[in-house]
Amino acid sequence: MIRLSIDAMGGDLGIDATVPASIAIASQNPDVELILVGDESQIAPTLESQSATANISVRHASEVVDMNDSPSFALRKKKDSSMRVAINLVNDGEANACISSGNTGALMATARFVLKTIPGIERPAICSALPKLSGFTYMLDLGANIDSRSDILFQFGMMGDILVQTLEGKSSPSIGLLNIGVEELKGNDTIKAAAELFRSSDLNYQGFVEPNDIYLGDTDLIVCDGFIGNIALKASEGVAQMILGVVRDEFTRTAYSKGAALISKPVLNSIKKRLDHRRYNGASLLGLRGSVVKSHGGSDAYGFENAIGVALEEVREDLVARIENSFIAMQE
Amino acid sequence: MIRLSIDAMGGDLGIDATVPASIAIASQNPDVELILVGDESQIAPTLESQSATANISVRHASEVVDMNDSPSFALRKKKDSSMRVAINLVNDGEANACISSGNTGALMATARFVLKTIPGIERPAICSALPKLSGFTYMLDLGANIDSRSDILFQFGMMGDILVQTLEGKSSPSIGLLNIGVEELKGNDTIKAAAELFRSSDLNYQGFVEPNDIYLGDTDLIVCDGFIGNIALKASEGVAQMILGVVRDEFTRTAYSKGAALISKPVLNSIKKRLDHRRYNGASLLGLRGSVVKSHGGSDAYGFENAIGVALEEVREDLVARIENSFIAMQE
Repeated sequence: MIRLSIDAMGGDLGIDATVPASIAIASQNPDVELILVGDESQIAPTLESQSATANISVRHASEVVDMNDSPSFALRKKKDSSMRVAINLVNDGEANACISSGNTGALMATARFVLKTIPGIERPAICSALPKLSGFTYMLDLGANIDSRSDILFQFGMMGDILVQTLEGKSSPSIGLLNIGVEELKGNDTIKAAAELFRSSDLNYQGFVEPNDIYLGDTDLIVCDGFIGNIALKASEGVAQMILGVVRDEFTRTAYSKGAALISKPVLNSIKKRLDHRRYNGASLLGLRGSVVKSHGGSDAYGFENAIGVALEEVREDLVARIENSFIAMQE
Repeated sequence: MIRLSIDAMGGDLGIDATVPASIAIASQNPDVELILVGDESQIAPTLESQSATANISVRHASEVVDMNDSPSFALRKKKDSSMRVAINLVNDGEANACISSGNTGALMATARFVLKTIPGIERPAICSALPKLSGFTYMLDLGANIDSRSDILFQFGMMGDILVQTLEGKSSPSIGLLNIGVEELKGNDTIKAAAELFRSSDLNYQGFVEPNDIYLGDTDLIVCDGFIGNIALKASEGVAQMILGVVRDEFTRTAYSKGAALISKPVLNSIKKRLDHRRYNGASLLGLRGSVVKSHGGSDAYGFENAIGVALEEVREDLVARIENSFIAMQE
């Protein structure tokens, strides 16, 4: 039996997203038990009204981490938050993984404090799939660390390698280091030193990749510092939103364009579906002694369901143990 | 009379882009003289076949900087390149500005070596307009410098401020510092120190902006380190290309979708036009004792024409003198 703890209160939509998503997962996976953590007086009636299955339970938590709470405030002052209690359940062995749409900084700080890092891993990182014309590119770190040293970038690569193997079933994922030019001479000293570490490792290192390769290239895993990863990710989100805004604008501008939109509806729907960021929602917090998946703060039920799916896959494939074993092997 | 020197051989298309663009500009601007620099045996017949006006001349240069030449190689070994000679013309006072689609690193290194920086400016930077739902955001540095100190980031802001005033006619452009969170606590030490410098200046500093604000926000000018700026720019290019690829894919998938594309043609054309990166082609190399504009390597004639337009505007508005004066004023 797999048990997942859900931070039911996290994210912009809270229980309106987490409860229906949990019910969907629970009814499709009879071998999974979901523990919804949060305000019982809100969760219980919602569950009841949506005819939940028997493999869902509620664990009360009296506080909620706010999107604006600093990581240290959440950690020190909100010890009975839905986020904290959900992570505690993983640490206590009551759950195999935890999923939250809450504040990223607080989630990472709390998970790190409660679960601790895997021996040999200095800093946990955030890894997620990003869409390509076909398939996905995995990228880390997406924002957990700034100013990462070269050996830390290499650790990110080791962890990401195992994640891609686990989630995509690829035996030796191709790995690239994010840089501003493919020529070896470009980039700063940290990246150059990291490239040396990758080159002399067993990993399937392919060299530097440029940021456009995230979406256009064929590298399975891209490694970068969290500051840069977060910049690339958010710039991408901005451009995508802007472009879809232009498309919407133009297809509603005149009577003719509205007619064209009507006729093109099936096509526009396929476009929307392929570019739907909810499809690949669910970023893995890697390097911890437990599985924690971060769902986008704005996730709806469909997006949150996909994030639970990522956690489920991590548990089924024993991701944390795989990472632990690989770091133990390295130290021997 | 304004004189512009054109690196006629630069970019993927070379004279196929630079010559028709120059002819278009020359015929629309009788007060402008264009000097096409490069292989005379190629340029002269092309000019002749396209019935050029009298305000275009050719200056022979025997070499071409390759896209793969390192900046130092271009600088030391190709002293008679079209790029170098075009920049020399600015230095000698024969031209007021220079435009090139050539290798960015070589262009910056050569321009810096030949023209020198404005007194008080430690490092030149690359600044360009990026599209929004309506209007543009200017951003610098887009890749000239890596690991910029806080005082250098502040200099970028001063130069960018004058560029936006010059090109957009805004008297006090709003300025943001690119960071991974709007909360003051996020980001690294360099960015925090830079924020302090902006805050205590006369500039219209608005605080940190996130990378999605480049395309969705209302800041006129965004300042960042060149490494980060280049990452954001190239990630954006990748996503945009991927999304347009999905749109193209879906509108050609079936007979029905091809029919919908036909009916939607005017709408799809407006979308294409609004997202056309050639419209805002032309990045300014700021901080040099002369105007140099970098056109995208893949520019066609239309894109190159717009880059010449940026240079023309810089000359008409006396950009270099304005930057010089502002740095002199600061040092007094």
